[in-house]
Amino acid sequence: MRYPALLTDLYELTMLAGYFDEGMHDTPATFDLFFREAPFKGSYAVFAGLEPALDYLTNLRFQEDELAYLRNLHIFKPAFLDFLKNFRFRGNVIAPPEGTVVFPNEPLLTVEGRLAEAQFVETALLNIINFQTLVATKAARISVAAQDGVVLEFGLRRAQGPDGGLSAARAAYIGGVHSTSNVQAGQLFGIPVKGTHAHSWVMAFPDELSAFRAYAACFPDSCVLLVDTYDTLKSGLPNALIVAKELREKGHQMLGVRLDSGDLAYLSKAARRMFDEAGFPELQVVASNELDEYLIRSIRDEGGKIDIYGVGTKLATCAGEGGGALGGVYKLVRLADQPKLKITSDIAKATLPDRKHLWRAVDAQGNFVMDIISREEECLKPGQEVYDPTNPARHKTIAENIALESLRQTVMDAGQICHSPESLERLSDRCADQLRRLPEGSLRLFNPHRYKVSISPQLHELRSRLMKAYQD
Amino acid sequence: MRYPALLTDLYELTMLAGYFDEGMHDTPATFDLFFREAPFKGSYAVFAGLEPALDYLTNLRFQEDELAYLRNLHIFKPAFLDFLKNFRFRGNVIAPPEGTVVFPNEPLLTVEGRLAEAQFVETALLNIINFQTLVATKAARISVAAQDGVVLEFGLRRAQGPDGGLSAARAAYIGGVHSTSNVQAGQLFGIPVKGTHAHSWVMAFPDELSAFRAYAACFPDSCVLLVDTYDTLKSGLPNALIVAKELREKGHQMLGVRLDSGDLAYLSKAARRMFDEAGFPELQVVASNELDEYLIRSIRDEGGKIDIYGVGTKLATCAGEGGGALGGVYKLVRLADQPKLKITSDIAKATLPDRKHLWRAVDAQGNFVMDIISREEECLKPGQEVYDPTNPARHKTIAENIALESLRQTVMDAGQICHSPESLERLSDRCADQLRRLPEGSLRLFNPHRYKVSISPQLHELRSRLMKAYQD
Repeated sequence: MRYPALLTDLYELTMLAGYFDEGMHDTPATFDLFFREAPFKGSYAVFAGLEPALDYLTNLRFQEDELAYLRNLHIFKPAFLDFLKNFRFRGNVIAPPEGTVVFPNEPLLTVEGRLAEAQFVETALLNIINFQTLVATKAARISVAAQDGVVLEFGLRRAQGPDGGLSAARAAYIGGVHSTSNVQAGQLFGIPVKGTHAHSWVMAFPDELSAFRAYAACFPDSCVLLVDTYDTLKSGLPNALIVAKELREKGHQMLGVRLDSGDLAYLSKAARRMFDEAGFPELQVVASNELDEYLIRSIRDEGGKIDIYGVGTKLATCAGEGGGALGGVYKLVRLADQPKLKITSDIAKATLPDRKHLWRAVDAQGNFVMDIISREEECLKPGQEVYDPTNPARHKTIAENIALESLRQTVMDAGQICHSPESLERLSDRCADQLRRLPEGSLRLFNPHRYKVSISPQLHELRSRLMKAYQD
Repeated sequence: MRYPALLTDLYELTMLAGYFDEGMHDTPATFDLFFREAPFKGSYAVFAGLEPALDYLTNLRFQEDELAYLRNLHIFKPAFLDFLKNFRFRGNVIAPPEGTVVFPNEPLLTVEGRLAEAQFVETALLNIINFQTLVATKAARISVAAQDGVVLEFGLRRAQGPDGGLSAARAAYIGGVHSTSNVQAGQLFGIPVKGTHAHSWVMAFPDELSAFRAYAACFPDSCVLLVDTYDTLKSGLPNALIVAKELREKGHQMLGVRLDSGDLAYLSKAARRMFDEAGFPELQVVASNELDEYLIRSIRDEGGKIDIYGVGTKLATCAGEGGGALGGVYKLVRLADQPKLKITSDIAKATLPDRKHLWRAVDAQGNFVMDIISREEECLKPGQEVYDPTNPARHKTIAENIALESLRQTVMDAGQICHSPESLERLSDRCADQLRRLPEGSLRLFNPHRYKVSISPQLHELRSRLMKAYQD
């Protein structure tokens, strides 16, 4: 996918023009991308979107038609438009690998470079990272709710635009979804594609059984029949069983059925019983219809027998409380040799100044204890106090028996990608592994345990000093 | 924008393969695209996305790499893949013009063609129309709430992917938004682009006043200063006034200020007073920060003095109750010479069979009275009874003094676009005009008046007959 240079807010360009006029555009600057609240009222997010973001940075340049458009706006000077002609991103990017479980206030992407380039990329980076991280997080919540059930994503028709569906398929896979209905996502990302048929297939035939037989004739070893066009229990399931028997007689094996309406817990139990009693225990029950993590959880609580959950709208658009958008922001933390702080009346909203390291404290069993944000050059030791960034009166001590793992690495150096791309499977495995290592209660759908994110003594001291200086 | 042929759910392809196998792919078929509930718990939607949808249909073809991918899935036969090579959309499309105010159960797009082509385009059409109609509707709600205030869209950074931001800017303009921050939308659609600067601009200078002066020097006649980096009342507004005076002395004129945090109603009144008293009544107050129609309404109720509302996340992602996605569906209504009906246990969810006309009843003053869906060949007359499609026991009579206007036209004929494209301004004017002509209470944010959509006598008769036939 090509991200055009004009994929940006106008103010990035007006600020760039201003910095250029002031001769400040080459001043070294550092920006952090972070969010202040986990989405869906949860405790965590799953970091995603890095690969597309690096792709954007690598290929960023203004095309002739874009420059012509800007010229015609009559708000930019010719010297500045000339400067844009050769504008490239030549900065550094520090980030965790995709699939990493991350928390509020942690620097995710850090961008270092000249003020011009580091500021300009704000809008596109936020667009890419905000959405993919949001979807990966929703997918993780849904996958956790589905436990050993398989999750299929098919939100394309309700997604927010063509690319909304495509990005969602990629991010959902990282978060734990197994396959997608989106064929383009299959082609571009290698995600397994799955699909059944629509009600219109059944309606196109004189009766349901003829429709099932025709579909089975075409896909004798991969067919999943949609059984709710007329009546799931009286017509759909019995007809599906007839076709399953006919296929078996011919040496084939039907995959299963899809339920798309009604009481999914009740109907799935009925289908399971009917299949088992008829000697078809291998037939799978797929269910869909406005599913999300809450509904899946409730179906499982009621003993529903669903093998595959088809999740569409609620996943692709990340609907639900605290959903719709991840509120990621992008803030200046250092300019020239000065650490920068955005103060506000609310200490919880003050930024964390300067270049930083992000550490994860892991206990002897491999479980995650807390994350610590430190200054770049700072050395953390057991016994030191670390502080709650939103309430510095609360602090705790780094224990003796924990290991500190660095969560981020330099992934782009002077505009060149310098990390090896990983397969989507690898990213998905990382996410699943990290979710398992979180403290008890972190994955709860309602009122989860809040994972601790602390700031180091030196970062605490720097922030306090800068806040005091601003207030004086 | 190119929409790839693989922008589809796998099941469209498996069904297509099935119809091809059965020799049914050339059977004439008609599908309707419609929604069952207006979004945001409102009474209406604003139809949008037609132009991109026609663009998709016109350019639909499978590329070599796409066919190679499908071949490698090993689920399709060679004859079918050959068939896809020359697959084109050569059908007809009937639709209202964009910007038309539409209601639940009304056929929006109707697609007529061979079963193969008419079925295949389902996913992409739903993706495009669902999202753009959703955003145009949200924009209309926001614009209605803002009354004579101007609305600026700047949701790109929180939008659902790059194209989510781009499509949203287009549809938001149709719904009544005046401008966008999205430069690409400016280039591609000619929407006016606007922007100010970020907090980072202010933080990049030694103090706020220097930052304001530098920005004003660069944009002396178009600058809007962001005044909440340190303290809106004590620092931001007084510094902005200093710069406004300096600009005036040099023969320039500052546009205004932007408030981005705090109590926007209170701060906007304070800013207005301060500007007026200082002799700068022309300075505009722009406000942003998680605005939507509800918040704008509440600010206006409290006498807030905001000239321009900057709306981002809540518009671009269509957040809010009943938002996130428009539940548009695409249903088979006719196959060969047979009207088709999808029945369900709930009559409100039964489809409306066969080819249809969509009429708007308009009174002598030009106000909209109700919409009527009829059979294609049916002639409606005053005095006839029309029926509530969700509850046929309720019916009313077509009055003498009303005119029936046909809401839709054939916009594509045998694969060729056959309507003249309209400017976005024209679409936006249509929407504003139609919103004014709705019955009182239709635009209410909570519990609006429900506009009447009725079905004609012959359509009522056909549906009843088909339902009875299925039940027997």
